[in-house]
Amino acid sequence: MARRIRLTLSYDGTDYHGWQVQPGLPTIQGTLETVLSGIEGKPVQVVGSGRTDAGVHAYAQVAAVTLDNPIPAPNLLRALNRLLPADIRVINAAEVHDTFHPRFDATGKTYEYRIFRDEICPPFDRRYVWHHPYPLDEPAMIAAAAVFVGDHDFTAFAAADEKDALGGSKVRTIYSSTLTRAGSQFAYRVRGSGFLKHMVRNIVGGLIEVGRGNLNAADLQALLEAGAAARKLGHAAPSRGLFLISVDY
Amino acid sequence: MARRIRLTLSYDGTDYHGWQVQPGLPTIQGTLETVLSGIEGKPVQVVGSGRTDAGVHAYAQVAAVTLDNPIPAPNLLRALNRLLPADIRVINAAEVHDTFHPRFDATGKTYEYRIFRDEICPPFDRRYVWHHPYPLDEPAMIAAAAVFVGDHDFTAFAAADEKDALGGSKVRTIYSSTLTRAGSQFAYRVRGSGFLKHMVRNIVGGLIEVGRGNLNAADLQALLEAGAAARKLGHAAPSRGLFLISVDY
Repeated sequence: MARRIRLTLSYDGTDYHGWQVQPGLPTIQGTLETVLSGIEGKPVQVVGSGRTDAGVHAYAQVAAVTLDNPIPAPNLLRALNRLLPADIRVINAAEVHDTFHPRFDATGKTYEYRIFRDEICPPFDRRYVWHHPYPLDEPAMIAAAAVFVGDHDFTAFAAADEKDALGGSKVRTIYSSTLTRAGSQFAYRVRGSGFLKHMVRNIVGGLIEVGRGNLNAADLQALLEAGAAARKLGHAAPSRGLFLISVDY
Repeated sequence: MARRIRLTLSYDGTDYHGWQVQPGLPTIQGTLETVLSGIEGKPVQVVGSGRTDAGVHAYAQVAAVTLDNPIPAPNLLRALNRLLPADIRVINAAEVHDTFHPRFDATGKTYEYRIFRDEICPPFDRRYVWHHPYPLDEPAMIAAAAVFVGDHDFTAFAAADEKDALGGSKVRTIYSSTLTRAGSQFAYRVRGSGFLKHMVRNIVGGLIEVGRGNLNAADLQALLEAGAAARKLGHAAPSRGLFLISVDY
């Protein structure tokens, strides 16, 4: 009897071409499907809560798979961690109801973007931060981060090739949006109902433009108010600093 | 007029075949010499405080180079960090007296070895710890760590291919030797006058044998007292968990 299994995944995205399967390229979904298909003895499909871009990391991505194999969930977790490369870890595996869908059932997601501000970036952090040691008006950036909270059309902050989703709407709800300095690290944390492709990286890029004095909070506000008519900002921060922190259900 | 420059280096050793130049293989010393020779316009030799093995990391390794190029030390630091790969950083560059020798002038070194004890090793830590989730008698290991303090002949803890140094003596002085548990991490920190090849990794390997119940503190003590007549322990812990923390002068 087939069972639906929810997998919670932590991964270092540095050496992957993102979440989604791409023929001939290492991806998180592809690596999981290969290992799970081996356990199941036939091809299986893994569904994620959403795609992460090439080089983006996850503390707790959520995925699901349907298996006929009766292996108990704790044993499946151990088997997966033995078979997967060390840069992908399954931190939880649990049986869930048949219809669980990681994307459609998600009620929110939290991302964090890490900027390293000192002149010299420690080699041990280099895969997990954007090293940006140049002058920035950090108080202006911290103040501007608040403009994203609420319901907005994020067309200006979508990827150039973003496809229409949810009936074409690019309206998303942001519950919290804050920048915090801790030591050498300047981190942006955002929780929202959902995110367009490249949206967090474009928001961070917009905040950096505020820090450089090229834009101000009112400019970001105007981009949000222009909605579907807005020009694309086109200043995506590099993927290495971005972490999917958690998915809410 | 030639100047002697002291360089303090931080590196992630994962992708290098250790410190020492080896033809055709990436090494820390070789990478530094290539970049410094480019700046100098002729071949230069970099001397380090000692070798680190393949895969071993450093927070503050010390090296020196003699340059005719009159570039001020702060500019040299910036130039090096532009030209070096991101997994090797120069954290300090300073002019020193002509005869400064990173190895002969060193009065002590501190190493740290990190063991990760939880069942699942976070992907972000995997390059920097030995993942050892199996049962260990940690209090016995913590007590046994103290036996290394003092002057001892470390023949039992030397590499199988350790060459005679300092007139063949394998006596070294250990000033402190402690194991500490902090969260999921169990870290061994040792400060001494100098270290034989693989010595820290063999000490950690010996302590792990204590944790497994295969040896006790008295056995380690006996290996030290047997001196040059001791059998080699031959249980080196993997290199990925080892960091050269600092060099004293």
